[in-house]
Formats: sequence, C-alpha cells, structure tokens
Amino acid sequence: MADKSIFQYRVEPQEVDFTFHARLDALCAFMLNSAGADAQHRGFGVDALMSKNRAWVLSRMAVEIDRFPKQYEETRLNTWVNDNGVLLSTRNFEFVDAAGEIFVRAVSQWCLIDYERRVPVALTECDSFSDDKLCTAQSPCSLPRKIRNVEPTEHVSRRAVYSDIDFNYHVNTMRYLAMMLDVLPIEMLASNRPLRLDVHFMHECRLGQLLTVGYRQQDDVSLFEITTDDDTVACRATIEWR
Amino acid sequence: MADKSIFQYRVEPQEVDFTFHARLDALCAFMLNSAGADAQHRGFGVDALMSKNRAWVLSRMAVEIDRFPKQYEETRLNTWVNDNGVLLSTRNFEFVDAAGEIFVRAVSQWCLIDYERRVPVALTECDSFSDDKLCTAQSPCSLPRKIRNVEPTEHVSRRAVYSDIDFNYHVNTMRYLAMMLDVLPIEMLASNRPLRLDVHFMHECRLGQLLTVGYRQQDDVSLFEITTDDDTVACRATIEWR
Repeated sequence: MADKSIFQYRVEPQEVDFTFHARLDALCAFMLNSAGADAQHRGFGVDALMSKNRAWVLSRMAVEIDRFPKQYEETRLNTWVNDNGVLLSTRNFEFVDAAGEIFVRAVSQWCLIDYERRVPVALTECDSFSDDKLCTAQSPCSLPRKIRNVEPTEHVSRRAVYSDIDFNYHVNTMRYLAMMLDVLPIEMLASNRPLRLDVHFMHECRLGQLLTVGYRQQDDVSLFEITTDDDTVACRATIEWR
Repeated sequence: MADKSIFQYRVEPQEVDFTFHARLDALCAFMLNSAGADAQHRGFGVDALMSKNRAWVLSRMAVEIDRFPKQYEETRLNTWVNDNGVLLSTRNFEFVDAAGEIFVRAVSQWCLIDYERRVPVALTECDSFSDDKLCTAQSPCSLPRKIRNVEPTEHVSRRAVYSDIDFNYHVNTMRYLAMMLDVLPIEMLASNRPLRLDVHFMHECRLGQLLTVGYRQQDDVSLFEITTDDDTVACRATIEWR
C-alpha cells in the first residue's frame, strides 16, 4: 500500500485577502496542484492518461478549515488516494502547521472521462492505477454532501474571460470558488471564521459565456449556484460557517 | 554599493493561461513580491516604513517580455534599486532562464506616501535608505513612458470585489493588469508574442466601486484606461506587440 505524499506550502502575498490570510480558493488551488503532481509521480497523471484519451475531472470536494494560514506561513500538505470506486476516485488532503496541528481537512472525488467524447468512463478500464497505489489512511472529514436546491435571493453576472480559463477554454474550477466568495457580504469574509465548504462541479463553462452566481444565506449556511446563459447549472456549493 | 538581489521562481499551474505559459500579471506579481522581500531585507520594507507612517506605492512600470516562461519552468529573478530621486525610487528586474538568457526586463518607479494623509512625500525625508543601498547596474530597459490620451472604442465594466482588494480595501495593482488582458481579443493572447507593457497607476479604487476598462487597438499597440464611477482615471497602460 502507498504512503501519504507530502508537499511543502508557503502562503504567498498574491494568495492572501485583505486580512493577510490565505484565500479559500488559493488553499484549494494548492491542493489541486499537489493532486496533479502526486498523480503524475505515481503514474496516473495527466500525461499518462492523455496518451489514452483519458483525463481526470474534479466532481466534488469538501473542505473543513479550522483556521486560515497567514501570509508567509509555512505549512505541510499531506495527500492520499484511499478509494477507487466504479466511477469515482477519492483523494484526501490535510494541512499540518509548524506545531504539528492539522488545521485543514479535505476530501475530493474525481471522475475519469473520455477526453474527446467528454463522458465519464469506469475507473476499472484504466490500468494506470491499481490497489497497491491506494493508501489505507481514512478520509479526514466526511465525503462531499449532495446539494439539491439553492433558490437564490441574490444574483451577480459576468462573462467568463481570459484569466478564468484553462487550456480547454473552460473556466478553471477554482474560479467558481472565487466568484462565489466575491458575492458574500465582506463582513463575513473579514471574520476568518472556521467553515466547511461542499462544492459540486456539474458542468463545464466556456470562454465568453455569461455566468450568474446565485446566492442565498440561510442561518449559518451560505448557498451558491452558478448557472450559464443557457440555464445549465455549472456548479453548486454551500459554506457552513462554524 | 549594493549587489543585485536574487530570487528563484517556478511557474505554478495557477499562474499560467490556456497556452500553459505564465500570465503577464503573474510575472508582475512575482516581481512585486520580490521587491517587497528585498526592501524588507535591506531595511526599507513595509514594516520599517509603517512605523513612521510611510508606505511605498507603485507609480509606474515598464516590462519587456521576449518570451513567456512555461508551466513549471524554473527561472531566476534579479532585482535592484539604482536611483532615488526626490519623489521616485527606481527598482529594476530581470528574469534569467536556465541557459543564462535574460528574457524579461522591467523598470518600476515607486513613490513614498504619508500613509494616513495618502500624499507623496520626499524620499529624502526618510532615513531608511541611503546611497550605499543603491546598485550601480543600469536599468535593463527604458523608463516607463507617459501615457496621455487613450480614447477607448470599447468598454467593459464590473464592480471591485473581495478577490480584487488588499488590506486597505483598495484594488490590488496586479488586478488592473488582469482586467486589461481580459478585454483583449483572445487570439492576441494565444500568440504569446513578445511585448512591452507600460503602465501608470494614477488613483486607488475601493471595494464596491464600478470599474470600467476602456480599450483601443491602434496598429500594434493596445491602449487601456480604467476609470471609476466618479470618472476618476485609476490607471492607464499600453501594450506594444513586437
């Protein structure tokens, strides 16, 4: 069985918000980068899969944050895959601070797609990963929750632009998170309160599409839904403030 | 006299665009971070100045890019201050690749402000830097040019949001660059052509203000002007495509 993989992370100035703490989307971006590097290292990364017309797509993610690290803080990130189901691979993350305290826990679920046809395929049809690449360590928090109806009370729209898109001309998943944070009342972001994020990426958005972020606040939960101009739901998320 | 300071830089996935090359705003962000770290190290950084109610404000910048570094490319950045005038300090940058080739050259000009009153003050009234902190090496490209009239033919507007702002609730200077790139035809950004950027930061924008990016293409030069909802010009820039 595999061990957890370890990455070092320092919070850089362009990753902090006005409180000098790392932004949620910056923490998630570092997790995804590490996921890519770890998959590559273990032989099931982008390069290995693309040669077989396969690619990973992030489907869901849950992130629990006890505290946000400060600018220039040095932390360690552990990441490991502990389950490969028929359609979903489960990758876990934990950030550990200098005192050895785990202060961020996350679970992500990934689909394998046929890159040209852009449809999910069974993980079992790919021979790049086998059970000996799994790690037995449990997931550090509960799996991403389903998010059904959001029924937003507020809406903000903007077009998908150059700085949003990846090599496919699709909006980067982390941009959805930034767009959701951008509609929150600034006081909620000033507090740096502990939180749990659940996010479900449902549909890809393309350069030039008009994206609408719908938002609703329900007690201590912020609910979000991003839709495109043809009324497709691109992404739903909740932030539970703790 | 001082030597050039050296920083190591690796292009991370969140810094590249759809062509897998570093975005212009990411390269500039790394230069500004290094400027901050170098100033700190030499005793005239944010901390030293803030205790005297002083702060650095970036006024103008010129950047010449022969080629854009690729994702994961490792480069070296040299930075040095070679002139302190009455009101402007001149800091230079050059990116050097693994083969020893300089492929990005930049010159930035900074004002010292009275932080509370937010007005420029003479550099000479601050004892934190003296001539022995200057480096004699010449600037690697010509000083930032003045940009007078833009007369835009296209306009795109959006509000300044959470992910745009710094600890003062002002829009981060690098966000202006991203906003300008976002209005360009995508084909121009696909080409990764060499370019020279000149940018002049004229006025601070606050959270919630409506910002309008005006754009005009004139032969091989893209001209930009960002204005606020009270018709103040926040920033002007040109990109000369080479």
